Amino acid sequence: MKIGIIGLGRMGGNIARRLMRAGHETVVFDRDEKAVAALVADGSVGAASLADMQGKLADPAIYWVMLPAGDPTEQTVATIADQCGPGGIIIDGGNSFYKDDIRRAKALAEKQVHYVDVGTSGGVWGLERGYCMMVGGDPETIKTLDPILEALAPGVGSIPRTPGRDNDLEDPRAEMGYIHAGPAGAGHFVKMVHNGIEYGLMQAYAEGFDILKGKSSEHLPEDERFDLNLTDIAEVWRRGSVISSWLLDLTAIGLAKDQMLEHFTGSVADSGEGQWTIDAAMEEKVPANVLSAALYARYRSRVEHTFGDKLLSAMRFGFGGHVEMPQ
Amino acid sequence: MKIGIIGLGRMGGNIARRLMRAGHETVVFDRDEKAVAALVADGSVGAASLADMQGKLADPAIYWVMLPAGDPTEQTVATIADQCGPGGIIIDGGNSFYKDDIRRAKALAEKQVHYVDVGTSGGVWGLERGYCMMVGGDPETIKTLDPILEALAPGVGSIPRTPGRDNDLEDPRAEMGYIHAGPAGAGHFVKMVHNGIEYGLMQAYAEGFDILKGKSSEHLPEDERFDLNLTDIAEVWRRGSVISSWLLDLTAIGLAKDQMLEHFTGSVADSGEGQWTIDAAMEEKVPANVLSAALYARYRSRVEHTFGDKLLSAMRFGFGGHVEMPQ
Amino acid sequence: MKIGIIGLGRMGGNIARRLMRAGHETVVFDRDEKAVAALVADGSVGAASLADMQGKLADPAIYWVMLPAGDPTEQTVATIADQCGPGGIIIDGGNSFYKDDIRRAKALAEKQVHYVDVGTSGGVWGLERGYCMMVGGDPETIKTLDPILEALAPGVGSIPRTPGRDNDLEDPRAEMGYIHAGPAGAGHFVKMVHNGIEYGLMQAYAEGFDILKGKSSEHLPEDERFDLNLTDIAEVWRRGSVISSWLLDLTAIGLAKDQMLEHFTGSVADSGEGQWTIDAAMEEKVPANVLSAALYARYRSRVEHTFGDKLLSAMRFGFGGHVEMPQ
Amino acid sequence: MKIGIIGLGRMGGNIARRLMRAGHETVVFDRDEKAVAALVADGSVGAASLADMQGKLADPAIYWVMLPAGDPTEQTVATIADQCGPGGIIIDGGNSFYKDDIRRAKALAEKQVHYVDVGTSGGVWGLERGYCMMVGGDPETIKTLDPILEALAPGVGSIPRTPGRDNDLEDPRAEMGYIHAGPAGAGHFVKMVHNGIEYGLMQAYAEGFDILKGKSSEHLPEDERFDLNLTDIAEVWRRGSVISSWLLDLTAIGLAKDQMLEHFTGSVADSGEGQWTIDAAMEEKVPANVLSAALYARYRSRVEHTFGDKLLSAMRFGFGGHVEMPQ
Repeated sequence: MKIGIIGLGRMGGNIARRLMRAGHETVVFDRDEKAVAALVADGSVGAASLADMQGKLADPAIYWVMLPAGDPTEQTVATIADQCGPGGIIIDGGNSFYKDDIRRAKALAEKQVHYVDVGTSGGVWGLERGYCMMVGGDPETIKTLDPILEALAPGVGSIPRTPGRDNDLEDPRAEMGYIHAGPAGAGHFVKMVHNGIEYGLMQAYAEGFDILKGKSSEHLPEDERFDLNLTDIAEVWRRGSVISSWLLDLTAIGLAKDQMLEHFTGSVADSGEGQWTIDAAMEEKVPANVLSAALYARYRSRVEHTFGDKLLSAMRFGFGGHVEMPQ
Repeated sequence: MKIGIIGLGRMGGNIARRLMRAGHETVVFDRDEKAVAALVADGSVGAASLADMQGKLADPAIYWVMLPAGDPTEQTVATIADQCGPGGIIIDGGNSFYKDDIRRAKALAEKQVHYVDVGTSGGVWGLERGYCMMVGGDPETIKTLDPILEALAPGVGSIPRTPGRDNDLEDPRAEMGYIHAGPAGAGHFVKMVHNGIEYGLMQAYAEGFDILKGKSSEHLPEDERFDLNLTDIAEVWRRGSVISSWLLDLTAIGLAKDQMLEHFTGSVADSGEGQWTIDAAMEEKVPANVLSAALYARYRSRVEHTFGDKLLSAMRFGFGGHVEMPQ
Repeated sequence: MKIGIIGLGRMGGNIARRLMRAGHETVVFDRDEKAVAALVADGSVGAASLADMQGKLADPAIYWVMLPAGDPTEQTVATIADQCGPGGIIIDGGNSFYKDDIRRAKALAEKQVHYVDVGTSGGVWGLERGYCMMVGGDPETIKTLDPILEALAPGVGSIPRTPGRDNDLEDPRAEMGYIHAGPAGAGHFVKMVHNGIEYGLMQAYAEGFDILKGKSSEHLPEDERFDLNLTDIAEVWRRGSVISSWLLDLTAIGLAKDQMLEHFTGSVADSGEGQWTIDAAMEEKVPANVLSAALYARYRSRVEHTFGDKLLSAMRFGFGGHVEMPQ
Repeated sequence: MKIGIIGLGRMGGNIARRLMRAGHETVVFDRDEKAVAALVADGSVGAASLADMQGKLADPAIYWVMLPAGDPTEQTVATIADQCGPGGIIIDGGNSFYKDDIRRAKALAEKQVHYVDVGTSGGVWGLERGYCMMVGGDPETIKTLDPILEALAPGVGSIPRTPGRDNDLEDPRAEMGYIHAGPAGAGHFVKMVHNGIEYGLMQAYAEGFDILKGKSSEHLPEDERFDLNLTDIAEVWRRGSVISSWLLDLTAIGLAKDQMLEHFTGSVADSGEGQWTIDAAMEEKVPANVLSAALYARYRSRVEHTFGDKLLSAMRFGFGGHVEMPQ
């Protein structure tokens, strides 16, 4: 199939490459001409503008937009929705907020343009491993896109089948590494919760390794201290333990390079999805202490002291002078 | 009554003074001779040693130990238990762990010495306001001590009576500002939970004021920022709001002095009681997310970055290179 | 002054009454004619409709809207904004979301109508104690409303002055029990955070009393159990302890009536403000573990089991069969 | 090698079988004669008592104790320590508290008996997959046990090597699936933290799936609801996503069987290790919000309503009557 890809950052570029490896034709555009040239060298057709791209695609056209969420995606979707005509398909493969998808899909439907949102997990490893994708949109459009999605997905590969799974009852796409999650927005919603879980998992490991490391702490009586080798612990847990995971593999890689992790500052960024997951939990009235705590740990990592901490000290000063004992 | 007071820090010294104001006789001892001299100037009888104090007390003797929890209290209690003879009463007014009280009470009972634990709240304000006390021990001994405890307690004062309260059903001591909570250990247990709650309350205010302060943050769109006067907010909440409290009064004092709280570093200490409260919750299988989070906020305030934060960055690096967008 | 009051529920009715006691004139309207009649009996002028009310007010008119947040408030504000003409003042005294205030104030400014938001704390006790109010709007309008707000506020009363407070530097209104917090929306924002804190404080007490109650639990070794009198504990903490507060007064009242609290089901509602406070924290990137945990405890209280709990069991079954020991 | 195995539950029995498969000789004992007979049928030598076992082992003897933590393990270790003589090795392969290991190792060292603690992960899958083991004890003894431990461990197998790992710098055992973590107690300590992390990971998934399931909730506006297929979501996340893990594999198995998980009650047990992990965090002053919240979710799952929930309602009643709006 022929597909236009807009946005050739690390994700967009590799998506184009993986599609070409599977025999699909790609037309590519990016504000950065060098990024376009690099893809052209790999076999893509380059486009000089969005309008130019339209002329180089089939009719109806299929677009994959891979831009930062918010304005860049919003404006690009609007522009190509105007130019592609009835029957066109616009895929947002970025990290949009799912309520924006719901809104856009409604607006585009009035022009008979199909809107599809694809939540994509896999990071820089996706080119080789394939991308795990959660897709929202109408069933007919997804069926049209199946060859594209199949090419991007990891496929069945060597991952063992889930005992008891019956593909007659469920969507057989799931075993290929992608799903049709529901109507527009459902793809990004599922991806959003995926990231919320990711934060929680990461923080669980982080706290655990903190406790392992702290076991040599001077807060402890000398005969209760252990000087543990975190690199070996991460390694051994990868092998037969209940908590083995891909994130643990990454932890083992990081610790093998530098057990003290000294080249990291400890300031941790968060994308919007952790926050949106908490919003969703609150809208649904679902308690989510772990996912919230994971998010807050990142906020906290980025400030030296909170004003709240100082307020605690102010209160303590108020009731105890500087004396700590009996309050 | 006559009572020996050991440990003349801010708390012990003021307890002696408040007892003398109520007409009780005090014999005092501290390793620091100046502290003894200051109390003697205020009317106490000074003792040169624990042995000397025994000779200056009535028989059976009553001791109030006001020392740091752990070894200092442990050793002093052991020493005076040996010297005071059957019928003696030893009060631990410090912050001992309640399981130590249970153990000590059993050991002293074999010598017919009565052990009483008094959890004391009130800080530096206690001399004037009186001390709120939670007392553990056997009923007869507490009855003996009532004149002492009544003198230390705030008394009914101007605090309005709780509607519906019936002192025929409950312990009338509570309205005076102290209670007989149960057998030895119960006093410190109730005080321990008091401090656990205190941490939770303080952290609730801390987070709330953090959110008020953050409302001028550059994270926000310009037309959604407010530059709020925290000093006035604390003040107004003292007056008729649902969240008025003594801790809020202290907050208002702190903010009136310095709205930016700039003379506080933001490193917040914790005594053992917050931790023991969480231990008790876990032993009882009671969920205590708020009290735990309050304690952890203090731990977190005392380190610049956790090792766990760095581990998060290491994992992020692993799956995304340095690229943050789509993971 | 003359003021129209729309919405005569428990709050609106009492606000009218407190204003009349201070000599203000009130014109009142409610869909429920009986509510109007009751106020008329107390001295108000009744209105048969919003249009009728306009005719009975001064020009420019002052309205106090005391309706549920959302549609009822939205529509009423729109209606009276159309009828009141330039210079009119519309006060939303309910629990609106502060971003709605910002939007409404902008829209009304185009008609030269002044919008004021008043966050009101005090509940059913406000008629006697006065209401603690946080006010947003433009300074001139607030100045016009001072006589109204002063009448509703508790006034300085018997609450001791905050040491170190300087009314030349701060807003002297705060000591009267109300503040001008900032532009439109600021009043409800401060009230929103107030309620977020309230949830945190309440949960801190809830967990603490849970731990006190659990101390008689069969999870514990028999010689570590205490059978504590919670009614007396709440009472004594009111008297000189660090954690005394109005919420503790209410706790003491509740426990004095029924120490087992058997007439409560344990399902706890939440209004939107706790959730909005967490939203604000996330927008500002402020960690708020305690306030979140307090909110989640309420969500959790309203379901018997979460689906997540079942998933935990499914995983446990997966790795251990039904055997619990060594995992 | 020859080894005595005490405790033939699911774990102990399979450990004996896996050792025999690797050519080791096992002498087995259990209070349940049938369990002994089953192992004898598989090639073990049966023992009629602990004393009998000693006679059937080499000198010095090697024992593997696989009993519930607490009294059963404590008493058995004491008995065999008395009978085995200098040079004997006693391995505790159960879930003992690591401070008990430290104490026991000291006591046994006086008799020149070597104490080794092995934290074992792998559950019912261990017989085939091998056991992930974290071992504490003195280096010489562990070297003696290497053939035993190697036989039990999964071995390198098909798990890809960690890029950057250098076995000259680290313990090469880790790649085989076991480590010498440190002196006695270190094995169980690392296993304890492993379980703490496990709780956190499980709860992160649990909350995420709760949010996915809640997306069809009536709390939401109708056009924002999705009816998501959780079975397919778990499956697709196994394939190329950042959050793939063995626990997710188990989740997929559970959901493939029954998407509603209706045969689970939602009451979730916890072993002591989650609690001990929190104790360790507090001793080290390490914040652990996620691990605590995971533990508390299990406590909460086992009660219908907390007393704390009722107290919240009592306070709410106090300030608002039954009226919820404006507080």
